[in-house]
Amino acid sequence: MQIAVVLYDRFTALDAVGPYESLSRLPGAETVFVAERPGPVRTDTGALGMVADRPLTEVTRPDVVVVPGGPGQSALMEHRPLLDWLRAVDATSVWTTSVCTGSLLLAAAGLLDGRRATSHWLARDQLRRLGAEPVEERVVFDGKYVTAAGVCAGIDMGLALSGRIAGDEHAQAVQLALEYDPRPPYDAGSPHKAPAHIVDMLRARSRFILTQEPSS
Amino acid sequence: MQIAVVLYDRFTALDAVGPYESLSRLPGAETVFVAERPGPVRTDTGALGMVADRPLTEVTRPDVVVVPGGPGQSALMEHRPLLDWLRAVDATSVWTTSVCTGSLLLAAAGLLDGRRATSHWLARDQLRRLGAEPVEERVVFDGKYVTAAGVCAGIDMGLALSGRIAGDEHAQAVQLALEYDPRPPYDAGSPHKAPAHIVDMLRARSRFILTQEPSS
Repeated sequence: MQIAVVLYDRFTALDAVGPYESLSRLPGAETVFVAERPGPVRTDTGALGMVADRPLTEVTRPDVVVVPGGPGQSALMEHRPLLDWLRAVDATSVWTTSVCTGSLLLAAAGLLDGRRATSHWLARDQLRRLGAEPVEERVVFDGKYVTAAGVCAGIDMGLALSGRIAGDEHAQAVQLALEYDPRPPYDAGSPHKAPAHIVDMLRARSRFILTQEPSS
Repeated sequence: MQIAVVLYDRFTALDAVGPYESLSRLPGAETVFVAERPGPVRTDTGALGMVADRPLTEVTRPDVVVVPGGPGQSALMEHRPLLDWLRAVDATSVWTTSVCTGSLLLAAAGLLDGRRATSHWLARDQLRRLGAEPVEERVVFDGKYVTAAGVCAGIDMGLALSGRIAGDEHAQAVQLALEYDPRPPYDAGSPHKAPAHIVDMLRARSRFILTQEPSS
């Protein structure tokens, strides 16, 4: 089973590493990081490079596709090399997945038409005009399409998908090995829980958070 | 404020990326990934390379030091280039931190003598013979030393430390931006919660999990 994790300039590292950390431990899995051009790809902060070992053109039939989000997503919504590749590999994939604003790329490729899907809470509404049905859930399964909410939701997605693929006991063993027994120091991880003025502040800065461009 | 994240062969990606994702968003932070030799460093699965942009010798006074864990840690317990560097930067660091078995490296460098500390649940007992006092907590602060439990605990550590450095409101805003509202699909993330036979299985495989070497 081959798992392809797609990298692109200004992706969010944890979007990719969260699901990678569990999915790469599936029995018999071969995980490959891919990008339009192989080599180091910088994350959204600019402070980290992660290596794409193979170009998109060399990975043509992955069983699982993982598309992370991040500010760089906004520059790729009409980028044929990526969208054409997504459509091509989706034709034979067993699972096509995303984390955070990665779902906007799947939708831009036309893969989520009429499907239930989620995204980062600041971006979820964009799914509708791209043809999907936005759902306010942490991880959304619709057929073979699995979309996760913002950044950290990719960890939940990876474990949930691991359970679907290899069974609950395998996924529980991976969860225990990764000591995923979360204790956030604050209860501020969703707009329903965070203090209202912090939610408002992020909404006001949403264009910067999602695209790293100043608000117009 | 400079944050140095240490990479080494066969580290666990999420150990490094978990705290990076929050700490790199501290106001005025410069985050730098360092290793003995700059360039791509492969993670424990072999499937991912992360780039160390600078050699240890060029980063001499970071304010925050982050040491991830992973199977490669076991090969470095007497590795002078790394341990000497840890001792040197600790002399001026504001915070010296670890995730998972990274605490064993801090202890091997003599930095946790008599201090309360934690590690991956399968490795925590090793802290005692290295001079530290093992504590069964998710994130342990002892003076400027901050140690996190296994892998995913680094996310909790990064946010807790962000709160200490930049205040609760900043850390809450980062938590909300990263949508860290965890919903693990199973309640199996600690040995107290996972099914007993899964805990026993991991204990039996602990040598492989911690060092990727077969049990003797």
